[in-house]
Amino acid sequence: MEMVQYRSPSTGLTVRAILFDTFGTVVDWRSGIAQAIREFAQQHDLSVEPLAFAADWRMRYQPAMEAVRSGRRDFASLDVLHRENLEASLSDLGMRPEEFPDDELRALARSWRWLPPWPDSVDGISAMKRHVIVGPLSNGNTGLLVEMAKHAGLPWDVVLGSDISRAYKPDPQAYLAPARLLDLAPGEVMLMAAHNRDLAAAQKAGLATGFVARPQEHGPGQTSDLEPSGRWDVSGSSIGELATLMFG
Amino acid sequence: MEMVQYRSPSTGLTVRAILFDTFGTVVDWRSGIAQAIREFAQQHDLSVEPLAFAADWRMRYQPAMEAVRSGRRDFASLDVLHRENLEASLSDLGMRPEEFPDDELRALARSWRWLPPWPDSVDGISAMKRHVIVGPLSNGNTGLLVEMAKHAGLPWDVVLGSDISRAYKPDPQAYLAPARLLDLAPGEVMLMAAHNRDLAAAQKAGLATGFVARPQEHGPGQTSDLEPSGRWDVSGSSIGELATLMFG
Repeated sequence: MEMVQYRSPSTGLTVRAILFDTFGTVVDWRSGIAQAIREFAQQHDLSVEPLAFAADWRMRYQPAMEAVRSGRRDFASLDVLHRENLEASLSDLGMRPEEFPDDELRALARSWRWLPPWPDSVDGISAMKRHVIVGPLSNGNTGLLVEMAKHAGLPWDVVLGSDISRAYKPDPQAYLAPARLLDLAPGEVMLMAAHNRDLAAAQKAGLATGFVARPQEHGPGQTSDLEPSGRWDVSGSSIGELATLMFG
Repeated sequence: MEMVQYRSPSTGLTVRAILFDTFGTVVDWRSGIAQAIREFAQQHDLSVEPLAFAADWRMRYQPAMEAVRSGRRDFASLDVLHRENLEASLSDLGMRPEEFPDDELRALARSWRWLPPWPDSVDGISAMKRHVIVGPLSNGNTGLLVEMAKHAGLPWDVVLGSDISRAYKPDPQAYLAPARLLDLAPGEVMLMAAHNRDLAAAQKAGLATGFVARPQEHGPGQTSDLEPSGRWDVSGSSIGELATLMFG
């Protein structure tokens, strides 16, 4: 099969790498985390509503990264932040995290490594991989993203985690460091994401942009990110559809 | 197919990642570079012996990295060193590098990105990939290694170049940084290499070790690295043979 080149209308450059937001865009964190919580709750006979707990845990994600982005704390990996946030969520429900075996808490905190892909992710990424470099562009750390890829079968060419860029999105460095390590101009790299705010920050940093709709990512009754809200290069309802749009 | 675990006799730990030296171990740099030189020489009507030129160019590799290792110069990527060394090799033959078009020199310097794999590399690495994380552990920079993998079809799970560790082998950091980024203990990572000195440094840094014989890697009449010279965990004559030894 012939390699096809896609030129970004916004950057004017041929896209050499398509890097994906992962949580919500490539993998379904909500159902994956809820399932991990469900199993943990059953094992310890806890009365916890899995989806609500998952949402509470996830709500602590942005504030925890903001402490790093603002410089209030040194860079800490997402595995570390997930563990801290898990303990905070348990505490808020009146539980004492220190009463659970440490290895079980550690495994639960690492359930972000074992999330299921959306049904179109593996085939869609594989289709793009014939034409460009594919990889994640995620706030996840490298070890987390590699284990996620092994588990979910994501065929990345390269995995450059936030612990390599030492920056969390939407910090411009989070978008620019992977491009630099691939010896590419920012405009030769496309961010593919289900979140308009992520794409806006990537575009501001000079990247090409692609939107994939994930209408269940925010949970039942999602009202935002149902449609592209900016002038992104491409948008579609699955990664496979975007691969066809870009590469035929 | 069931995932099989391999425990390193030397580190006592289950090996979670097998990282490969690339130049000489996974790809055949000598014939690949000679071919690139041959084409360049034909195009510019130069009288150059391709294999001798390749050997001369490669001889400048260790001294160039030593300037970085010793701290005499700041870290510079292997793409940069390859370009400088190419110009030095041309100059030593009485040519003036500045008389060639810059984009052609750049392409020739980047021919290290387009080297052919040894015949057993892709299948052998694919066999190991079912059981462990696979990736390069090379002095190449990330962009170089990703392009090499795309070209040669190397199915890496992760590519962490020397520009991420900011260290050239046999600096211990070159072996320890990838383990750290994968959240693994050094002893959970195996270096697979055709060079005994590389393995000795990896073992000293705490890694597991595997030797693959590449009896033509040093050119005709190779006398060293024909056999394992240390107590490595495994050794064999192809990556496929090593995959079978380790994982059945």
